Amino acid sequence: MKLSTIRTADNATSAVRHEGDELVLLPHVDVAALLASGEDWARRAARADGRRIVAAEASYAPVVPHPNKIVCLGLNYATHIKEMGRPTPTHPTLFAKYDGALVGAHDDIHMPAVSDDLDWEAELCAVIGRATRHVGESEALAAVAGYTVLNDVTVRDWQHRTREFLSGKTFEATTPVGPALVTSDELPPGAAGLDIGCSVDGHAMQTSNTADLLFDVAHIVSYVSTIITLRPGDLIATGTPGGVGAGRDPKVFLRPGQRLVTRIEGIGETSNRVVRDAPV
Amino acid sequence: MKLSTIRTADNATSAVRHEGDELVLLPHVDVAALLASGEDWARRAARADGRRIVAAEASYAPVVPHPNKIVCLGLNYATHIKEMGRPTPTHPTLFAKYDGALVGAHDDIHMPAVSDDLDWEAELCAVIGRATRHVGESEALAAVAGYTVLNDVTVRDWQHRTREFLSGKTFEATTPVGPALVTSDELPPGAAGLDIGCSVDGHAMQTSNTADLLFDVAHIVSYVSTIITLRPGDLIATGTPGGVGAGRDPKVFLRPGQRLVTRIEGIGETSNRVVRDAPV
Repeated sequence: MKLSTIRTADNATSAVRHEGDELVLLPHVDVAALLASGEDWARRAARADGRRIVAAEASYAPVVPHPNKIVCLGLNYATHIKEMGRPTPTHPTLFAKYDGALVGAHDDIHMPAVSDDLDWEAELCAVIGRATRHVGESEALAAVAGYTVLNDVTVRDWQHRTREFLSGKTFEATTPVGPALVTSDELPPGAAGLDIGCSVDGHAMQTSNTADLLFDVAHIVSYVSTIITLRPGDLIATGTPGGVGAGRDPKVFLRPGQRLVTRIEGIGETSNRVVRDAPV
Repeated sequence: MKLSTIRTADNATSAVRHEGDELVLLPHVDVAALLASGEDWARRAARADGRRIVAAEASYAPVVPHPNKIVCLGLNYATHIKEMGRPTPTHPTLFAKYDGALVGAHDDIHMPAVSDDLDWEAELCAVIGRATRHVGESEALAAVAGYTVLNDVTVRDWQHRTREFLSGKTFEATTPVGPALVTSDELPPGAAGLDIGCSVDGHAMQTSNTADLLFDVAHIVSYVSTIITLRPGDLIATGTPGGVGAGRDPKVFLRPGQRLVTRIEGIGETSNRVVRDAPV
């Protein structure tokens, strides 16, 4: 089953189920509200009937527009660790984003006026389906409702202004996520073994496979749940493979007007134009 | 005016206004909902009448239980920068916490089973009162509804497992915030020049003054608003002065059963017992 959050005519949003070329509106404001509505959310979402719209005409909001948490991993593919010149980590490197950074699957990515160093980071994103704390690795995947595509677009110079990544990771309207959550039952366990990559104006920039994750989804979910309770709709961005612009010689960054396409096999793709914010 | 969020008998919460020894219930579920209810929130909150309860009997929730953002600063007092052996930063060091880390002013602080290195960090916390982006320093303080007390209690070994602080900063139920937001009009501009400190079982551990902030509140608000839109109820924890347990020789950490009291002149104090989580 594929689920999305779309913008409706009345300036609100609705969860939808994909059905062929159509979307069936579900009685929840977004995918997170569906996931939080009870453990049998999948059964109810699969059966529900409601107003239908043509999928090609939909305006996709972020799959979860306002997650309680966005947990991001740094340094989780060997190729990216090498290009950033870092040692192989012994624990997951966690950082956060705020929801104001998120945009929909086809929305513009906003390049801030204060930087020229906007970089791509294609990532597999797990979406949590139930409240979860202290879950072992062997049970952790049961907490994952499904997977979506995320690009952890980064303001690279602001990321490295200080030792903490947050400043460069949470600029407004920079991070596409969507278009759909694909439920776990339709994918390999942990969404492992899927081709992942992104392109800029049709030129492939990252080409990898989720089998190369250093810490896999089960490990990450278990680890984060040691720290804090995961909630339905929480997003976990699992890190990016090699091929980012800052890892190239010379470095390459996104330019206004370019199109960034991020794709994961069996999950979907986002396609976003880069626009430059006006100076303040 | 002093505003709090208290737990009510029906397992819900309510915003309240302090009036002498009483609290007047306001028609909002928490202080964030009041702040988001319109620019004239202060006038309405000051005038509102409603059910009253005895302040001494109140159970305080975090002043804002579910902020859209918790923005924290590292390395923002010269004394703390020195004890942590870091160079003086040229930009604010920002990191995040998730709302699950917050506890009320008199709640227990949960020491996780996986660490013995629980440390204190007394902090001035600014509470945002209106949606704010790209605000200059000279206008920034108008975005601050008021100030409260926060202790950025830190699981120090997990903070330093990786280069990113988040893992050690967002353990469940570790961060007291409250008991009240004191509105900006009752404090010096930017809440500068106030004594701040904390004690453990009555022994003073941090003794400083908010005049020693490296980046003051106006600068921080302006800086964060360059990155992302601040929202009513957002919390900005402005960093901690010297005197943390990890900066001592030998290091000192919190032990189960101890009481951590955090106090800021003119704003209030939190008083929290440390309890140890059972092993999983």
